Amino acid sequence: MSFTIQNVLIPVDQAYETVDVQINAGQIAAVGSQLEVVGTAVDGQNKLLLPGFFNAHTHSSEMWQRGIIPPVPLELWIAELYEFSPLNPEQIYLSALGTAVETLLSGGTSVVDHLVLIPGQELETVAAAVRAYQEIGIRAFVAPLIQDEALSAGVPSGGAAIDHDPYLRSTTATLNLVEEMVQQFHRPAEGINILVAPTGIQLCSDALFKGCIDLSDRYNLCRHAHLLETKAQKLLAQEKYGCSAVEHLQQIGYLSDRTSLAHCVWLDDADIEILAETRSTVVHNPLSNLRLGSGIAPLLKYRQAGVNVTFGCDGAASNDSQDLLEAIKIGSLLHNVTDLDYQHWTTPRQAVEMASLGGAKGLNVSEELGSLTVGKQADLVMYDLTSLSLLPRTDPIGLLILGRPTNAVDSVWVRGDRIVAAGQVNTIDVNNLRQQLFQHSEWVTQRRSQELRQVEARYRSVMGLPESSSGYS
Amino acid sequence: MSFTIQNVLIPVDQAYETVDVQINAGQIAAVGSQLEVVGTAVDGQNKLLLPGFFNAHTHSSEMWQRGIIPPVPLELWIAELYEFSPLNPEQIYLSALGTAVETLLSGGTSVVDHLVLIPGQELETVAAAVRAYQEIGIRAFVAPLIQDEALSAGVPSGGAAIDHDPYLRSTTATLNLVEEMVQQFHRPAEGINILVAPTGIQLCSDALFKGCIDLSDRYNLCRHAHLLETKAQKLLAQEKYGCSAVEHLQQIGYLSDRTSLAHCVWLDDADIEILAETRSTVVHNPLSNLRLGSGIAPLLKYRQAGVNVTFGCDGAASNDSQDLLEAIKIGSLLHNVTDLDYQHWTTPRQAVEMASLGGAKGLNVSEELGSLTVGKQADLVMYDLTSLSLLPRTDPIGLLILGRPTNAVDSVWVRGDRIVAAGQVNTIDVNNLRQQLFQHSEWVTQRRSQELRQVEARYRSVMGLPESSSGYS
Repeated sequence: MSFTIQNVLIPVDQAYETVDVQINAGQIAAVGSQLEVVGTAVDGQNKLLLPGFFNAHTHSSEMWQRGIIPPVPLELWIAELYEFSPLNPEQIYLSALGTAVETLLSGGTSVVDHLVLIPGQELETVAAAVRAYQEIGIRAFVAPLIQDEALSAGVPSGGAAIDHDPYLRSTTATLNLVEEMVQQFHRPAEGINILVAPTGIQLCSDALFKGCIDLSDRYNLCRHAHLLETKAQKLLAQEKYGCSAVEHLQQIGYLSDRTSLAHCVWLDDADIEILAETRSTVVHNPLSNLRLGSGIAPLLKYRQAGVNVTFGCDGAASNDSQDLLEAIKIGSLLHNVTDLDYQHWTTPRQAVEMASLGGAKGLNVSEELGSLTVGKQADLVMYDLTSLSLLPRTDPIGLLILGRPTNAVDSVWVRGDRIVAAGQVNTIDVNNLRQQLFQHSEWVTQRRSQELRQVEARYRSVMGLPESSSGYS
Repeated sequence: MSFTIQNVLIPVDQAYETVDVQINAGQIAAVGSQLEVVGTAVDGQNKLLLPGFFNAHTHSSEMWQRGIIPPVPLELWIAELYEFSPLNPEQIYLSALGTAVETLLSGGTSVVDHLVLIPGQELETVAAAVRAYQEIGIRAFVAPLIQDEALSAGVPSGGAAIDHDPYLRSTTATLNLVEEMVQQFHRPAEGINILVAPTGIQLCSDALFKGCIDLSDRYNLCRHAHLLETKAQKLLAQEKYGCSAVEHLQQIGYLSDRTSLAHCVWLDDADIEILAETRSTVVHNPLSNLRLGSGIAPLLKYRQAGVNVTFGCDGAASNDSQDLLEAIKIGSLLHNVTDLDYQHWTTPRQAVEMASLGGAKGLNVSEELGSLTVGKQADLVMYDLTSLSLLPRTDPIGLLILGRPTNAVDSVWVRGDRIVAAGQVNTIDVNNLRQQLFQHSEWVTQRRSQELRQVEARYRSVMGLPESSSGYS
């Protein structure tokens, strides 16, 4: 299928040009002035064309808990999250669709779904998410979230001897499951990729990490994990390894140029050097880091050290949205308060490159994606510059990144397939999705986790907070 | 004109109730179950009703420069801002309409417009903004921005002897102008209020502040100003007064329970005590503070000290949007990283109260506005809880504040007049506004301020930054 976008604005160097863009067989075939119309003509007038962005870290099924967890730090938040009733595969399917719609309508063409697996229905969970992503047509990097230690092991002991329950599944059984998922679902040419994705050092043994490295090498899979999201995790790494989490991950060989690491809030300068050396990618989730009070990731230091950085929304229970443009805006602005020298601050054009090419690099697909380059895949987003939120006319990329674009995405193509046109998703019925989400949920006015109360006392003690009689609310 | 909203969700204590709300003669007449339908019936099913929020600090005409100024700190940003061609009253009118539309569609029913005046057309500037606000029907607090010192006086001298040009108008002439504006436009009963609004200590003499206090007392006007937005302003106050800016404003009598102060980033504990004692209001503009790298205002300290706090978008050249829900979200989340004890963090319900009642308190109208209370004015916003961005159903206020509501405002009433219905502004033609904004502007690909280059060397030296050869870009 071929088409030609006519008279569309694209960024070049520090300026813009109005060009035509020819797409053929899912790839960018030509970019230039007054090109011959090949296939369908698409009107690009008063529109801006950019490469699709990557929502490079999320957990789609958290959509079911968005808006409901009170403002508490990660270690208490996660106790709340896991106390909700387990989901079923139909819900996984619906929240994957919802995540995809919000990502597409905020400039994303790819999603990295660090997917929480339903115990006992792990393959069905992945099947449901994959089905959703294939139906809607977004490019998906499904990263089944695995661990082999119990949740309580994720909080530092503070020197106390604590017995943790064993995890519900053995390390070997978990690795076998992941291998089965790879064999069933990993189809890069069709836009569906499986990643190895231990949740992070706080809940995973070295054996699990090493098994993932082995799978990654054998099947050519990218690697994903959370890394040092909270100060508590930094303390935990010292307790567990006697060195920093980054040093440990380097020693066991997990870091590489196809490893992307979500959060990276609590790294020191030596850790940053290791990320640069190993060419690992940082996925910055600024809204989640603020929501959970995790801290401000040292983004400007990463960029100065040459570490590749891209953006994610994180799961919708810690954000509580999947609006990628919002994450990019805040991920750009937030760091201006961390460095007095504005010459280090992130410009809107740099943010666009981080969100597109930066995402592609972290997933080892920068040869095929991430820029408007002839020969690359046509994962494209076209913005309507006559949207009120992008007026008056000034600098289109400045308006897009520093503003609050609303109803600004006109069209989205993934592998050359137009899945959004005139601002509407045309591969699925969004009104029906809304009805399904509505019917499968109810308004909740008050809840309090029992598990949270149990974790809370230890958390407050380890973190040096005064004892609480009243609980968090 | 009367109407009755039926079966609408409202917050009560820590829960929700489904109620009917009767509105009569612009006021809330009754709230309860199964009320008689008085006047028109309005369907409130699957909708949430809240008091309208206050966009408690903005500069509407900055909309013409949104998206275009690169990431630089305030003192350089403002040099860029003032280098643009002066606007005309027609542009003032259009940007006031644009500011109002974005505020209304993000939950605001009142706007505080710290309005930059066109030199030589000061009354025409206010007339144009007032015309826009009356046409669209938003409640307006127009705060004509005045100063009596030249822009270059706003940067600390660092001990150097610097001659500043005199300001274009005398202090007395400026005060006379403001008095004329009060006489022509101050009509609280019609929803148009004039405030006294010196820009701040950085560009105003004591004589100007004292003249404003006198006008405020004689005409019963609220007071507004910027306060300690940047570290440079803190240094400047010490140079200028030998004490903190807050101590000085208290000494000259500017602080009061009808004084609202934008930013308040660089206050120390003694300053915060003074704000609490004088019952002054802090207007928090988190996005602008991040965009300009000004810093993180000590919001949690304000709240613990009992200082009234509300939210603003700030002008659209330093944000670069007028989406009030975005400002409220970031203004809630941002501070979680400043205090390890999550029991101090702002909850979504607290944020709603700050944005509504907090705004009303700062403008001395908390008897008439800011809550769903019988007898108060009907400045109301009704949200569509079936918007995809507010699904699945969990906690409606959690979704609204922590999420990223898109197309979620169904209806807006100001003084009982419905100015938004089914998500569309019905008092002005928004498509025509978009065309006007489009026609009065052009895409700009590259610009650099000459004035900025002159200010930049002094700024870098005073702030202890290394000399720059290349400039900021």
